[in-house]
Amino acid sequence: VDKTRTEAFSDAVIAVAITLLALDLRVPEPTEAASLAHQLGERWPNYVAYVISFVTIGIIWINHHAMLRRISGVDHTILVLNLLLLLTIGVLPFSTALMARYLTESHGEHLAAAVWAGSFLVMALAFFVMQRHLLIAKAHLVHERLGPAVRRWVLRRNALGLLPYAIATLGAIVSPYLTLAICGLVAGFYALPATTGDASELAGGPDAEVAP
Amino acid sequence: VDKTRTEAFSDAVIAVAITLLALDLRVPEPTEAASLAHQLGERWPNYVAYVISFVTIGIIWINHHAMLRRISGVDHTILVLNLLLLLTIGVLPFSTALMARYLTESHGEHLAAAVWAGSFLVMALAFFVMQRHLLIAKAHLVHERLGPAVRRWVLRRNALGLLPYAIATLGAIVSPYLTLAICGLVAGFYALPATTGDASELAGGPDAEVAP
Amino acid sequence: VDKTRTEAFSDAVIAVAITLLALDLRVPEPTEAASLAHQLGERWPNYVAYVISFVTIGIIWINHHAMLRRISGVDHTILVLNLLLLLTIGVLPFSTALMARYLTESHGEHLAAAVWAGSFLVMALAFFVMQRHLLIAKAHLVHERLGPAVRRWVLRRNALGLLPYAIATLGAIVSPYLTLAICGLVAGFYALPATTGDASELAGGPDAEVAP
Amino acid sequence: VDKTRTEAFSDAVIAVAITLLALDLRVPEPTEAASLAHQLGERWPNYVAYVISFVTIGIIWINHHAMLRRISGVDHTILVLNLLLLLTIGVLPFSTALMARYLTESHGEHLAAAVWAGSFLVMALAFFVMQRHLLIAKAHLVHERLGPAVRRWVLRRNALGLLPYAIATLGAIVSPYLTLAICGLVAGFYALPATTGDASELAGGPDAEVAP
Repeated sequence: VDKTRTEAFSDAVIAVAITLLALDLRVPEPTEAASLAHQLGERWPNYVAYVISFVTIGIIWINHHAMLRRISGVDHTILVLNLLLLLTIGVLPFSTALMARYLTESHGEHLAAAVWAGSFLVMALAFFVMQRHLLIAKAHLVHERLGPAVRRWVLRRNALGLLPYAIATLGAIVSPYLTLAICGLVAGFYALPATTGDASELAGGPDAEVAP
Repeated sequence: VDKTRTEAFSDAVIAVAITLLALDLRVPEPTEAASLAHQLGERWPNYVAYVISFVTIGIIWINHHAMLRRISGVDHTILVLNLLLLLTIGVLPFSTALMARYLTESHGEHLAAAVWAGSFLVMALAFFVMQRHLLIAKAHLVHERLGPAVRRWVLRRNALGLLPYAIATLGAIVSPYLTLAICGLVAGFYALPATTGDASELAGGPDAEVAP
Repeated sequence: VDKTRTEAFSDAVIAVAITLLALDLRVPEPTEAASLAHQLGERWPNYVAYVISFVTIGIIWINHHAMLRRISGVDHTILVLNLLLLLTIGVLPFSTALMARYLTESHGEHLAAAVWAGSFLVMALAFFVMQRHLLIAKAHLVHERLGPAVRRWVLRRNALGLLPYAIATLGAIVSPYLTLAICGLVAGFYALPATTGDASELAGGPDAEVAP
Repeated sequence: VDKTRTEAFSDAVIAVAITLLALDLRVPEPTEAASLAHQLGERWPNYVAYVISFVTIGIIWINHHAMLRRISGVDHTILVLNLLLLLTIGVLPFSTALMARYLTESHGEHLAAAVWAGSFLVMALAFFVMQRHLLIAKAHLVHERLGPAVRRWVLRRNALGLLPYAIATLGAIVSPYLTLAICGLVAGFYALPATTGDASELAGGPDAEVAP
């Protein structure tokens, strides 16, 4: 079973979700009471949340890209796991809007931040579960030059990636700004050069010789 | 006539529809009268309806995937039948939002549930009509190793798939929660491993020898 | 220059536009004053306009499909003409919503219907201009077996396709229901088997011998 | 690393953004106080801004098309730069709606115009940065027949393309209509035949001999 349509469908869902983020950047109504500059300025949480969520979804797309490139086909279980991953991505425009709306409020701001970071955590978890299924249960679909050591390394890195989102979710108890800072740092970190490896890099890396 | 663009267009329409579902997960306005937790909690029908509709559309995409993979080309009639199927999928964000909005109301909740399950029924019917057209009228476009017995088996399974949605639609007379439960069970059932077969599995199955 | 990405981009734009149509199928707010059935029933223009516009956009996609299949590459002028065609398609969710909102009103219903049918006319015109450019000015990009007679036949049919939309636009002066009926009939007509020809059919048709 | 999915993802994001522009073409509510013609007429800034932004995004898509066609693969840095470019494109439905809403207001119109043209400027800058990275730092990924002179010529043209948007942004101090006029002229200019070159044209141009 070929994987081209799975990639195309996933690309489209992620692309729609990432672009729908901007729907929450609403135009303020003209009013005598405040200048446009003031009104736009008040909405800074929307812009910050937009950028962080956009980069985070973009990174997950890059990783999804790398994950599917490693395998040569898909089956029903992979399709369903992929669907669950897309479900968690589809929720992000909502959780981002929630975070942006409540960040500067005096009620609900902790919960909103926890939901936002929590939605990243769930997404990362869905990614990890799919990655794990591919590398362990569907090892026969993976290009053979990925040895067991590389697989373990990929999975360990994916599991580690859950940690900052868990901390950010818990951090919402302290302050939603802490959550914002952690999620922003994570997005920035992954956007740095060479922080996401892909199969070709791995194959050329130190573990590459450990082919089955 | 090649089918690549038909797949790409269908993928995109289904991907947009599945992602638009999340637009109905609206952010509650901050208010003194109720905590955010309470407000979000009150909207649980939105989350449940989102998940069920997301998985249902995802399953139809997987089936669409399998259906088109069986044929080697498309013609005008296939394109129009596909368009009608996409039309029924495009309606789902609306019927899902309707269900979510009325589930816990004391007026209109039966009709809303019937419309929701009814929209799944119509979608499944459009799918069955297209599948039937491909396997019977356009048999020459189908890869030859699909014998008559396999075709009948696929169609029988598709026709059987209409049943739960018909029951869920009728069940709305009793209670919208019954409708919700049935549609949820159906989505969960199809998401289980190996409940949707595809041509390659079928070709390797017991009917595979019955090639024309 | 290859045309794959042009097809992919066009597919995506048309797919988004066709799916955004459903955003206008809004969920009525629960109210004591009227039953949900009554409220949904009152919105029948939305459902009718949704179906007609969906099928019309679907048909233009099928035709776009056939148009691009005839050529072997794209250049800047083709890309810009294609962009203008997509621009006219992108407007359709708006003009459809306008028609649906005003059809049963006692003010503005004629103008709304004229804008709706007029937006179809402009789209069909953009299609004709692009088709004409491909078949006349960019004849060297067209697969050679399309002879001059076939080209003239295709263009004549495209030009004829403008007529019903022009009549529907003018018919809005008489009644918006006349406009609705004409656009509905046109959509139904094109959805019938074998009303849109494609290159392969043409090549096998009576004109096929008239190759250059 | 292949670039097919990068193109597909970018196509989808740009396609969604370009189609979401139309969401701001809202249907006016029926009212006794003004005719529909009057109400639609009052919203002319929405239509003008829609067309200019649509063509501008379309042009950037054409250029993106040409930019990626020049390279044979992508790496992490390219993916991240591409993501930032898409982020700036995703913002355009918002900045376009802002411009359209405030153009004819007596407060905030200068800022709205500056934000609109400024968002084009930032997009063009992100494009330039990515182009520069590809042609200079990732020269080994570029098809070899693009000589140093051609590369410099492409970059010089991209850098020059920043100028009108910078002027349009500054021009908002004078009048938002000046900004509108400049952005409209730029969109019209790039839509003219042969104003965007692509690799194949360049390779056939005067610089084509200067291959490495």
